[in-house]
Amino acid sequence: MLSPRFRFRHLETVRFRDLDAIGHVNNAVFLTYFESARLAYWFHTTRREGLSALDIVLARAEVDYRSPLQFGESIEISVGCTSIGRSSFVLESDMHERGSGRLVAESRKVLVCYDYAAGRSRPVPDELRRLILAQDPEAGSASST
Amino acid sequence: MLSPRFRFRHLETVRFRDLDAIGHVNNAVFLTYFESARLAYWFHTTRREGLSALDIVLARAEVDYRSPLQFGESIEISVGCTSIGRSSFVLESDMHERGSGRLVAESRKVLVCYDYAAGRSRPVPDELRRLILAQDPEAGSASST
Amino acid sequence: MLSPRFRFRHLETVRFRDLDAIGHVNNAVFLTYFESARLAYWFHTTRREGLSALDIVLARAEVDYRSPLQFGESIEISVGCTSIGRSSFVLESDMHERGSGRLVAESRKVLVCYDYAAGRSRPVPDELRRLILAQDPEAGSASST
Amino acid sequence: MLSPRFRFRHLETVRFRDLDAIGHVNNAVFLTYFESARLAYWFHTTRREGLSALDIVLARAEVDYRSPLQFGESIEISVGCTSIGRSSFVLESDMHERGSGRLVAESRKVLVCYDYAAGRSRPVPDELRRLILAQDPEAGSASST
Repeated sequence: MLSPRFRFRHLETVRFRDLDAIGHVNNAVFLTYFESARLAYWFHTTRREGLSALDIVLARAEVDYRSPLQFGESIEISVGCTSIGRSSFVLESDMHERGSGRLVAESRKVLVCYDYAAGRSRPVPDELRRLILAQDPEAGSASST
Repeated sequence: MLSPRFRFRHLETVRFRDLDAIGHVNNAVFLTYFESARLAYWFHTTRREGLSALDIVLARAEVDYRSPLQFGESIEISVGCTSIGRSSFVLESDMHERGSGRLVAESRKVLVCYDYAAGRSRPVPDELRRLILAQDPEAGSASST
Repeated sequence: MLSPRFRFRHLETVRFRDLDAIGHVNNAVFLTYFESARLAYWFHTTRREGLSALDIVLARAEVDYRSPLQFGESIEISVGCTSIGRSSFVLESDMHERGSGRLVAESRKVLVCYDYAAGRSRPVPDELRRLILAQDPEAGSASST
Repeated sequence: MLSPRFRFRHLETVRFRDLDAIGHVNNAVFLTYFESARLAYWFHTTRREGLSALDIVLARAEVDYRSPLQFGESIEISVGCTSIGRSSFVLESDMHERGSGRLVAESRKVLVCYDYAAGRSRPVPDELRRLILAQDPEAGSASST
């Protein structure tokens, strides 16, 4: 059943601390898994490194929880850009459990290029746009603001 | 500027551990704050107690990040039900910083009543529906499935 | 039974996310509670503010777990300095549950004044030493290196 | 420089969420890494599985922080039992960064076999004692209570 939507893949292993008192991975931890995958995608795609490369801010997160995730399981997250606008872009992800292949969650994030010094959004730099489209050509056919 | 949408309020204080390397509260921690508020709402509204009252599962989460949250700040989260369907209902929240009154995030969650023994969703019990509508009468005028 | 060892007190509330799959507050989260209390102590005692005041590093942590901590409980942590050496000092803490008054944990930390630019420890500045002894006079009668 | 003390090894990767506002892995997260390693050791050594195997409680934790841990690094933790008493035993660990081989932390934990139903400690079962000594024969030459 494991059929990732995007070329870029990232692996994570469930830690005991990721569980909550219900005995499943806590809902907030899914955002942490998606964040790890998103940063790995970002470093890979933009060929930049380190925390200074994180000059983007998360404006919106959507997560659909498809199946509970258990202790001892591990996951594969695929990440891709599905749309680029003037100053923002959309990253989508799916998360599959590696042993069973089942879909455990899907996510959509809106990210905004940010000028921390000026305290406001800024246009997506041309070089970044080019690198993102090189990784995910299909992002060019959609648009977001 | 602090103008909560809903009657039910919950307070949280930012811990140092809630920050990430950018120096703001990490995006996943917002789900933890909303979870604390949602559980407080649930115990208050349903007059039930303890982890056994948590026979509902989170199916979808949406968060809009409006403003970064800093160390030393504290927040007020308001929670209300905006729609009840056959087996699911929608809880919405807004989060304001208490000192400045500014809006820091908004959230919408879809929750499903769940029968853990049978491993499937179940209808919202009449008694729960009555208690939710007593807390948030406006939820009755919308619908979800 | 609540009889804190030190004058400085800090309150924390257990979040649902602090629990683990056993249903109690996870052992690592105790360090987070102690950290929140330690920072509050530090800002109070040194009359400094913000993350730039954190020019100290944790060299050693000891925690004795005395009683499990449950969902819905809240805690009071007392913090005091029990010894100051040339470049390090010792902070000790106890943590009581507020409702029952029972002791839930005790902790001892060794902290080192650090020069991040030079990448090495540095002597405790005289002004800090004076402020710490003003808060915890008994720290002057012990010694650490 | 990587020279683990014990035969049993466990790998962890630093997540972005593990960092704090200082930009290093937060001190509490080291306990989470050690916990993951300890559970892996426990399942391996006792040949038991699942959360029901966790009928032991952590009574004391000591951590010596030797070197800051950065984003992008990964670690190897070795775990071994150094002493078994009547109802408790001691697990020690060291944590090395895999790329540089440097020692980042050492830990010592006192664990107690626990009867959750009776609410008190219980003797280390003979079968567990035998399995622990099969993994770490040197634990037999020390003693703890």
